[in-house]
Amino acid sequence: MSPLEIEAPAGDVSTPVDPADAVIGKSVTRLEDRALVRGEGCFAADVNFPRQLHMRIVRSQVPHGRVLAVDAEAARRMPGVIAVWSGQDVADIPPIPFRATKVQGLEPYCQPILAQSHVRYAGEPVAAVFATDPYIAEDAAALVEMRIETLPPLMDARDEPQEFLPGLSTEPTVIRKGYGDVESAFSAAWAQVDLALSVGRHSGVPLECRGAVARYDASRDVLEMHGAAKKSHWNRDEMAKMLGRSPASVHLYEGHVGGGFGVRGELYPEDVLVCLAALRLRRPVKWIEDRRENLLATNHSREQYHYISAAIDSDGRILGIRNRFYHSQGGYVRTHGPRVADMSAGLLLGPYRVPAYEVAGHYRLTNKTPAATYRAPGRYETTFVRERLMDAIAQKAGIDPITVRRRNLIDKTEMPYERPLDALGVDVLLDSGDYAGLLDKTLARVGWDGVRADLARRRAAGECVGMGLAMFVEKSGLGPSDVVRLTVDRSGCVELVTGAGSVGQGMETALAQICAHELGVDYQTIRVVKGRTDQIEFGNGAHASRVTVMSGSATQIAARKVRAKALDVASKLLGVAPDALHVRHGVVRPRGDPDAAGVTLAQVASYLHPSQKTSEGHAPGLSAEGWFYSEHMNYPYGIHVAQVRLDEGTGIVHIEKYLVSYDVGRAVNPKMIEGQIVGGLAQGLGGALYEQFNYDAAGQPLSTTFADYLMVTAHEMPPVDVMITEDAPSPLNPLGLKGAGEGGTNAAGAAIAAAVDDALGMPGAIDRLPVLPEDVLRHLSTRTSPQPDPHASDTGGMPDSAKGP
Amino acid sequence: MSPLEIEAPAGDVSTPVDPADAVIGKSVTRLEDRALVRGEGCFAADVNFPRQLHMRIVRSQVPHGRVLAVDAEAARRMPGVIAVWSGQDVADIPPIPFRATKVQGLEPYCQPILAQSHVRYAGEPVAAVFATDPYIAEDAAALVEMRIETLPPLMDARDEPQEFLPGLSTEPTVIRKGYGDVESAFSAAWAQVDLALSVGRHSGVPLECRGAVARYDASRDVLEMHGAAKKSHWNRDEMAKMLGRSPASVHLYEGHVGGGFGVRGELYPEDVLVCLAALRLRRPVKWIEDRRENLLATNHSREQYHYISAAIDSDGRILGIRNRFYHSQGGYVRTHGPRVADMSAGLLLGPYRVPAYEVAGHYRLTNKTPAATYRAPGRYETTFVRERLMDAIAQKAGIDPITVRRRNLIDKTEMPYERPLDALGVDVLLDSGDYAGLLDKTLARVGWDGVRADLARRRAAGECVGMGLAMFVEKSGLGPSDVVRLTVDRSGCVELVTGAGSVGQGMETALAQICAHELGVDYQTIRVVKGRTDQIEFGNGAHASRVTVMSGSATQIAARKVRAKALDVASKLLGVAPDALHVRHGVVRPRGDPDAAGVTLAQVASYLHPSQKTSEGHAPGLSAEGWFYSEHMNYPYGIHVAQVRLDEGTGIVHIEKYLVSYDVGRAVNPKMIEGQIVGGLAQGLGGALYEQFNYDAAGQPLSTTFADYLMVTAHEMPPVDVMITEDAPSPLNPLGLKGAGEGGTNAAGAAIAAAVDDALGMPGAIDRLPVLPEDVLRHLSTRTSPQPDPHASDTGGMPDSAKGP
Repeated sequence: MSPLEIEAPAGDVSTPVDPADAVIGKSVTRLEDRALVRGEGCFAADVNFPRQLHMRIVRSQVPHGRVLAVDAEAARRMPGVIAVWSGQDVADIPPIPFRATKVQGLEPYCQPILAQSHVRYAGEPVAAVFATDPYIAEDAAALVEMRIETLPPLMDARDEPQEFLPGLSTEPTVIRKGYGDVESAFSAAWAQVDLALSVGRHSGVPLECRGAVARYDASRDVLEMHGAAKKSHWNRDEMAKMLGRSPASVHLYEGHVGGGFGVRGELYPEDVLVCLAALRLRRPVKWIEDRRENLLATNHSREQYHYISAAIDSDGRILGIRNRFYHSQGGYVRTHGPRVADMSAGLLLGPYRVPAYEVAGHYRLTNKTPAATYRAPGRYETTFVRERLMDAIAQKAGIDPITVRRRNLIDKTEMPYERPLDALGVDVLLDSGDYAGLLDKTLARVGWDGVRADLARRRAAGECVGMGLAMFVEKSGLGPSDVVRLTVDRSGCVELVTGAGSVGQGMETALAQICAHELGVDYQTIRVVKGRTDQIEFGNGAHASRVTVMSGSATQIAARKVRAKALDVASKLLGVAPDALHVRHGVVRPRGDPDAAGVTLAQVASYLHPSQKTSEGHAPGLSAEGWFYSEHMNYPYGIHVAQVRLDEGTGIVHIEKYLVSYDVGRAVNPKMIEGQIVGGLAQGLGGALYEQFNYDAAGQPLSTTFADYLMVTAHEMPPVDVMITEDAPSPLNPLGLKGAGEGGTNAAGAAIAAAVDDALGMPGAIDRLPVLPEDVLRHLSTRTSPQPDPHASDTGGMPDSAKGP
Repeated sequence: MSPLEIEAPAGDVSTPVDPADAVIGKSVTRLEDRALVRGEGCFAADVNFPRQLHMRIVRSQVPHGRVLAVDAEAARRMPGVIAVWSGQDVADIPPIPFRATKVQGLEPYCQPILAQSHVRYAGEPVAAVFATDPYIAEDAAALVEMRIETLPPLMDARDEPQEFLPGLSTEPTVIRKGYGDVESAFSAAWAQVDLALSVGRHSGVPLECRGAVARYDASRDVLEMHGAAKKSHWNRDEMAKMLGRSPASVHLYEGHVGGGFGVRGELYPEDVLVCLAALRLRRPVKWIEDRRENLLATNHSREQYHYISAAIDSDGRILGIRNRFYHSQGGYVRTHGPRVADMSAGLLLGPYRVPAYEVAGHYRLTNKTPAATYRAPGRYETTFVRERLMDAIAQKAGIDPITVRRRNLIDKTEMPYERPLDALGVDVLLDSGDYAGLLDKTLARVGWDGVRADLARRRAAGECVGMGLAMFVEKSGLGPSDVVRLTVDRSGCVELVTGAGSVGQGMETALAQICAHELGVDYQTIRVVKGRTDQIEFGNGAHASRVTVMSGSATQIAARKVRAKALDVASKLLGVAPDALHVRHGVVRPRGDPDAAGVTLAQVASYLHPSQKTSEGHAPGLSAEGWFYSEHMNYPYGIHVAQVRLDEGTGIVHIEKYLVSYDVGRAVNPKMIEGQIVGGLAQGLGGALYEQFNYDAAGQPLSTTFADYLMVTAHEMPPVDVMITEDAPSPLNPLGLKGAGEGGTNAAGAAIAAAVDDALGMPGAIDRLPVLPEDVLRHLSTRTSPQPDPHASDTGGMPDSAKGP
């Protein structure tokens, strides 16, 4: 049985919607923007309650040490200070648990909400001050004295495993995956290619820092936390457990979120502290992270060191891959456990056919800020590694990089393609894709040969210019389930309640479009209620590029149920068979007869109101719940192409042009996907060229301001051409949806590295990210003579039309 | 077909609960009291938001007049004043609609949120001031100048119909009901008894005045109003309509409610004003009613003038009744329309067999505060009228009052007894009752004959003492439907979500008891979520003594569904047939084997969590919705017995002893019912002896402080004996429930009147309520000689054991 037979979705793939009424596929304006452009957004800092206290965290300045004493007397004496807590005050609260690992034995690595016996990174919360004013809290925090016995900082994940803390190794686990006969592949190989590659430590740095406002309503015995994001339901459940409460008595509320990116909305010590304080101090408690804290305390990501080898035949075909990598986790294992390392191991192979594979991911504790997921986690890193490897194979085999990729791509006829691997706990089953087809379209869009010829001319004229291409496979739509509840009220307003989260990605618009499309209403009349745990029992938040796929499919199911009920009632009211009716603009009418009498959905809802005695035979209310289940992720895919010019004086890499092509199966809102891709690319380019959390040898963080941690600004962003294709709809859901959030980020490091290599004329020169000006200058200084162009067939220039929005 | 065949409830009347585990019927402590006794209650005044404004209403000092101008300039200039609105500023907002009338033509009598062309009662809102501080708002309100042309006040509902306002009569409708041949009954009668009776204007005066805090959250386009009560869902829907919003975008929240009694929680102008202001001014707006406003502006009630005649035979049996009454509505028709007059007409006949009946209820506008429902609306008034009539019949026929009642009572063998009348829009079908049986039990409890003999001795010794008895039928459980949603979370906590309201009556405890009883859990682990319109789509609030009957029955249904699902899952997990399992203390185990392995409901909920792949075959979640439908009300019944002593010097009526006997079908929590009855009696006695809204001839209200409006205090409350019986369970719901909220109030006026008559020795002397000291003195002064005791057979005194709690 084909794996896809297992996965065949229930329900009707065809849509009953008149093409003229289609909403899916239209670049309608975003529902989210109405509030935002009017300045009506409500971010965590905008939430205030009377009598609220302000929390300030006292953080360790020592990266590794034993806590001898915390003296808070002076702070407590300061007028306006209500309480100061150190580790012993919260010793009864368990550490923050995992939500995404089943690896045993990691519990001792979990982070307590305030440091107990040891501190493990500079920035770790050691004490919390609660005061009537945020400035008093900050001043009082400066009076808290920490006596810490310093221990040698362990900063390099590549060092041999050693004792991290008494009884705890720096290597709690090694992720091992693989299949096939790797040994034979390498012994039979025509050649072997070996690379040592590294990706720097950077992360999502949202415009809005984290924040949380907790309030205990004793009158209802309800604890509320405002400022939630990403995983509100899970965080609700776990905080309830940590605080000894029932989940039903804890409500988390997500407001507007000024950027999620995987980092915002995980369960952090500060979230638990504000909630605990609201319970204990019986006053609302507010905490707003400042930028320095954000760069010190919010999850870092990416830092990995790979040692990869490929066995190839003389045509550049891959026979086997062996990889060993070191993942620098930082001082604690946070909610994800080793998920990023796991994904790195499970998804490294991308779009290529690899007969044998073996990987060992060494998960290492270091005295740095703990790391976790950030947009395209494990893929950004491994796409860099894999695509560097492909370029090296091309070089080794003397074949141009495009051709070597073509030879190794999985063919569309092989789909669905089952890899004997797993990632995120599910089997890797590439559901659909035409990788070679997208490569053709991309080269044509770029005008590849012309661009290469043009670059050759410019190089000959002395410019350091080059271009690089990188291919990748993304993943999206993690199951196992999702639910949406739809209700039409007596005014005809449609309320869509979801446990999914909105972190800026446009999910409210996307779900409203799917609902409007299926239900026959204006998408602007749909109220999307999200991120409020008291509104729906279950929810999965916003992560893993799953919302449009999972919540979108659940929306479709719910909308069809509501439509069916509406048609059934309207059929009675109009005396017309349900099959002969349709819904347009919120009115149920006979199909093809726009002048016939109809009933509005509002009228149907009124008919179904339980105060009416007319609704016999129908359950009250025009509403339905839609559940969608999926056992597999699906796999969008794409290509990045970068054209760069190196400044020989400064070493700065100027990106002249950039193309992202991406197949999303079905684009609900093409303009929003473009926005996602361009935004994601900005972050990908940050990690490729600018952003890095640096530490000195003593373990002190050096990148704690925006003067040191260099974000991409409008100045650095190149023109971007985005090509969205819908060639490979997912067979795993009726609409064919795949996720769009991470494709802009995924291959940026890989494409930039290839382009810089090309501009340097030094294939393989770039072996680490970010590519800093000093790296470029060093390479330029060691360059002997221009290398032959590996893309021997190139003949033209990238046309001006290839420009982004 | 018997009417009850139509009504036979679905479902199993027997309970599967082990008697040792029964929770229904136990006087467990109230869930509500945990917060209240700790001072953690949250009433409307406790709700505050940053930046909130305070509203102060400028009220008409003229009872009837034409508005010439409202000059708010001086008020607007006051620092801290943000806005002042008069009628023209809100002319676009429609007046407050009806929720309880289908009478046509009443719309012009609806109240606008601020007076438009005319004012119709002293206290009517004319302008609203919004300021940053409540004291500024009040001071500014004093600066608003109203120029009003006064018109003659129309104060007496008995005056001939006339023009109330241009084009509007003082009599918009007459309620007419009846059946049988009244004409023949009267012409064939042995005698006719005629009475003219009146009930004073009084009302529910909660400890907590009204209050409302509205907030518009532009970030979600949600309007919230805190301080809701009684009919939150209906008010939400209607306010949404008035403000041009969808119901889904308006949320009402009920906190603790310091007394409902029918008056709190109707839709009032002030509720709409705070919401409108929150929308327009974009700041939270708070309004807290002061006591003077409460006595001027919150619904009045009761004031009626009855002219009733009975045709009787020589045995004192009623052949027919004819009644004409005048209902003094006040200046506007509020949400109820003429519902109180309708119930007065439809429910007057009480427990008696009346072959022919004719009633005309003249619904009259007057220049007084608008009136509506107050605890036992239409029944308090008509029980007074009917029981006065029964005493007069006894007098006329020379039969003692107990015997005359016995002869006319509907017998239990006649149940269900269909009266060809309707009330609250449904047919009057007395579902069950043993009125004579309750009379026997009551007389035995009182030691009737002994008490009367004792009173005769005391009268002979010169004391003015007497006793009176009044019988009544209440009504409860208004349909048509109700819903409860139950969810067990992974901690085992049961959440019960209801659209019913909690106004102090103990509904949270009652519903939790029913749920605990059916589900096999501790009632204290149940979280009752109520009065929050965003938590459940439909709700009926708290009115008409319907919550325990309707929401309680829905709770039973939901609990049985949840239990069935839990047993089904546990059966799989334990390998035991569902029939052999039961739930005790939250654990599913084989019946009769307390040592056998079991699974907790928490474990079942975890198994059913959608993140688990084990729950195949079950819908996710351990939850269920229960809907209960009912087309008829049901009818509890009871008797009041009062023993009084008159102070001949002051005319004060001292209540020496009081008994309320009441059959509720099934008592969920006897202690709570006792509390309801004693509290209700306090209000009944207030209307019988003390409370009255007085007006002078110019229409000026005289009862606007507690020095003038005399509430019953602990000093006035007599010892009360409460006898709760369960002799006539309702066949209309599986648990046999009837409502308990209004029986303590219903017959208080009637019983006091009879007792004062008896003490005066002047049958029929008391023809109006309240019975004031000056009335007593007047009667005492006109008394000639002691009358013969109408209760000729009496021989003893009320024993000391007949004391209340």
